[in-house]
Amino acid sequence: MTQEEVQNGCAAAKQVTFSAVKPQLFVEAPKANDAVLFYKAAFGAEEVSRTVHPKRKAEQESPLVLVAELKLGSSVILVSDLVDDSSAPVKTVGTGFVMCLETEDVKAAVEKAVTAGAVSEGELAEGEGEGLAAKLKDPYGFVWTVCSPIKKSADAVEA
Amino acid sequence: MTQEEVQNGCAAAKQVTFSAVKPQLFVEAPKANDAVLFYKAAFGAEEVSRTVHPKRKAEQESPLVLVAELKLGSSVILVSDLVDDSSAPVKTVGTGFVMCLETEDVKAAVEKAVTAGAVSEGELAEGEGEGLAAKLKDPYGFVWTVCSPIKKSADAVEA
Repeated sequence: MTQEEVQNGCAAAKQVTFSAVKPQLFVEAPKANDAVLFYKAAFGAEEVSRTVHPKRKAEQESPLVLVAELKLGSSVILVSDLVDDSSAPVKTVGTGFVMCLETEDVKAAVEKAVTAGAVSEGELAEGEGEGLAAKLKDPYGFVWTVCSPIKKSADAVEA
Repeated sequence: MTQEEVQNGCAAAKQVTFSAVKPQLFVEAPKANDAVLFYKAAFGAEEVSRTVHPKRKAEQESPLVLVAELKLGSSVILVSDLVDDSSAPVKTVGTGFVMCLETEDVKAAVEKAVTAGAVSEGELAEGEGEGLAAKLKDPYGFVWTVCSPIKKSADAVEA
């Protein structure tokens, strides 16, 4: 056992720290580039980096996107082309997931996204404990909720 | 038109800023509490806030989770019980998505998560342009990749 393990009393208790969680969205190849352009137009995302697929075919007009990092507020999302040989994610994931976009101006954000091609699903709703919220579906099948920052309630934290 | 709109030349160009993107994972009710405990044990997540479902039934032992905020590194994820009357997300989302967890110690992170109940899928792989990476499936059906921070390549940014 290392000194660290001895101090912890157990190897399994080793301290692991994560710098960040980045949701990675896979879109049908070769639409990742289009998706990046869409997220820029709809949500004002900034492209931080892009790594292209090394196995590019000579006849391809543009290389496939292995991973593009997009900055959205203080968060980063990843967009990738789903290719046959990629370590493909499952098509159905858990019970469901949405990407929550927090903003002080929900209405303006929805208008901008819809102008860029997102489809608004349902009316703006005053979510319980969540402030104003709206649901959008993007052209790549992902669901986004645009909402006011979550209000912390004093009695909300437990377990 | 407001002064701001005149300055922009167009109402649609109104500046919209997002504070953050938070992936929201829906789990089959009433398992959200279990999922929160799992993410604490597996990834060291810290619960920041919890809002419980207001329509709790008297006979329920514990209230359903409307939304629990978990801090993971510099990021926040949301975990919610999927209930009949929730603004339910779609079951199948886009082509697929995974949650990328960045850490300097991929091996230790995977060991800790597996000890907590995650299932490792495949071997540790040296991802192209992504450093060391491993794939995990959690007990709630979500797929996580644990990987070294993405290396920026000088020629990677385009479009």
